[in-house]
Amino acid sequence: MKTTKILLITLLGTLLATQSAMAAKKVVRWKLAETWPTNFPVFGDTTKNMAKMVKEMSDGRFIIQVHSRNKHKAPLGVFDMVKAGQYQMGHSAAYYWKGKDINTMFFTTMPFGMIAPESYAWFYYGGGMELMEKVFARHNMLSFPGGNTGNQMGGWFKKEINSLADLKGLKMRIPGFAGEVLAELGAKPTNIPAGELYTALERNTIDALEWVGPSLDLRMGFHKIAPFYYTGWHEPAAELHFMVNQRAYKRLPKDLQEILKVAMKASAYDMYAKSVHESGKNLATMSKEYPNIKIKTFPEDVMVALRKANEKLIGEFEKKDPLTKEIIESQRKYLKQVRAWTEISDQAYLNSAK
Amino acid sequence: MKTTKILLITLLGTLLATQSAMAAKKVVRWKLAETWPTNFPVFGDTTKNMAKMVKEMSDGRFIIQVHSRNKHKAPLGVFDMVKAGQYQMGHSAAYYWKGKDINTMFFTTMPFGMIAPESYAWFYYGGGMELMEKVFARHNMLSFPGGNTGNQMGGWFKKEINSLADLKGLKMRIPGFAGEVLAELGAKPTNIPAGELYTALERNTIDALEWVGPSLDLRMGFHKIAPFYYTGWHEPAAELHFMVNQRAYKRLPKDLQEILKVAMKASAYDMYAKSVHESGKNLATMSKEYPNIKIKTFPEDVMVALRKANEKLIGEFEKKDPLTKEIIESQRKYLKQVRAWTEISDQAYLNSAK
Repeated sequence: MKTTKILLITLLGTLLATQSAMAAKKVVRWKLAETWPTNFPVFGDTTKNMAKMVKEMSDGRFIIQVHSRNKHKAPLGVFDMVKAGQYQMGHSAAYYWKGKDINTMFFTTMPFGMIAPESYAWFYYGGGMELMEKVFARHNMLSFPGGNTGNQMGGWFKKEINSLADLKGLKMRIPGFAGEVLAELGAKPTNIPAGELYTALERNTIDALEWVGPSLDLRMGFHKIAPFYYTGWHEPAAELHFMVNQRAYKRLPKDLQEILKVAMKASAYDMYAKSVHESGKNLATMSKEYPNIKIKTFPEDVMVALRKANEKLIGEFEKKDPLTKEIIESQRKYLKQVRAWTEISDQAYLNSAK
Repeated sequence: MKTTKILLITLLGTLLATQSAMAAKKVVRWKLAETWPTNFPVFGDTTKNMAKMVKEMSDGRFIIQVHSRNKHKAPLGVFDMVKAGQYQMGHSAAYYWKGKDINTMFFTTMPFGMIAPESYAWFYYGGGMELMEKVFARHNMLSFPGGNTGNQMGGWFKKEINSLADLKGLKMRIPGFAGEVLAELGAKPTNIPAGELYTALERNTIDALEWVGPSLDLRMGFHKIAPFYYTGWHEPAAELHFMVNQRAYKRLPKDLQEILKVAMKASAYDMYAKSVHESGKNLATMSKEYPNIKIKTFPEDVMVALRKANEKLIGEFEKKDPLTKEIIESQRKYLKQVRAWTEISDQAYLNSAK
């Protein structure tokens, strides 16, 4: 009888200890709000890829459900929803939030800025992550690179741009900061919802537009109605971003924090590789179906003027906030250092090894 | 008394069930053999980074111990040790194994081949991984991208190369396939151990050598004794690789398999970003300390002859094995498609947005 009782107590103790260890096995369920519509190519693949890695690496202990804009109806409300904790995380582009905080603008891409490999080097080894952390901590969020589109094309134009004069009065869909730079040169930038772009271009409501590049442009069909496809200057490497609510992140066990971080990182890099792949594939399709697409680069005087306007506007930002100045200076200094390398490596190779 | 017994049995049953679920919590211990010496920069950071991610994501259930060449004494025995299961995994460069299997040679980099973003696109979205899998399955191994050096420099030369004639009889340390290409042009390629390279160059035992690029060249000091630093043609994006013993991999629980795969992928991409960063940083240091470094590109006739020799040698491989042909054709076709995109994106941007 006494033995049985001792055994009982021992067993009970062991069971409690074991079950307490098992507590880590309970399932964490998160929701992610993305700015994109359901099944949006490349961008939408990134969140699916990330959620799948998290689920498999955690053996089903961490499930992230992705809500597209079709579900949450607030494509540009993702920032506020993650900040408030309504969603534990989001996937969007940091420069969409420049109206809320100008410092978010610098973590997507900048005109005449870094290309993707340079940008990843800056984020992970050149101080970029630390600066992004500072900016988003002010909003109780963490922010991580969320996938690169690669170099974006300058856009589809109905008429050739032969000089600065051709930009005067040009009605172009080009949102954000790049639009402001173009406006300095006399263009009339506008923003038009994606669904109305084709018709606007066809009916000459606009003379030109920029979207992304072949990876996403093909399905939009712009190449059928605007033959001049200009090379890029304004978004040399647009990096999307993951936002994570700070409190939600802190409540995760350490291993799930690490699983989340590595899955975000790997899926972001994957998106860059996928963007390169889709761009090559779709450019080949476009060129085959529409051999009349004319790939052009803006003449030198236009490029020089764009760069000058860009530097003027950036110079104005620098005066507004010490953190803005810190970010701009970090990027400027880093670009100078890393570009010297790009010039003698990939650029020299691409130019010489034809 | 009866109640106590029933309770006892119930408790025992629950405990056994709980502990069986806990069995997944046992620690898996692996050893990785890397070709590099202890604390080798960039390359060695990759294995440490991977092992750390695996440990943290698995909450300590999967520990990978890294053995450098200083420990296992067989830098070029990594392939055999992983194949035999002596090590569960390895980190090296696939083209080191061309003597064992010619098809391994194509998964590092090829002269006049893809740059890093193109290469990652080919691996993950263009069929490269599937081909690498086929090659390594013949050796009971899995193989994964293991980190990119970025574009490697053409090397340090004591004299300027002004024409094809300057290559005749040139004694150059340049191992592997690139050495064979140079030999076609009359150069005398040799291989010399890393520790003897500086002295060999200083004493004119060799006239030139290639190593990696600023990321690893700085510490070697070649810039102090050979002023001409040539841009690259022969290794536009050297991707290291992880090898995993197939049986060891199959024995892993599903979640640890996924953790390993994602950690290898993220650490490989990370190495590419780090290579870009270190190259920029070290190039700046070199240029400051030794302003006399002359960055040069081979004249056009040399580049054309190198390309021709390269194509001739690759053509010979194609005839040897249907799988070799399949790999070469996949790369050739993919490069053509993706390069058309690189030309109108990063290359056009770098050339126009100065």
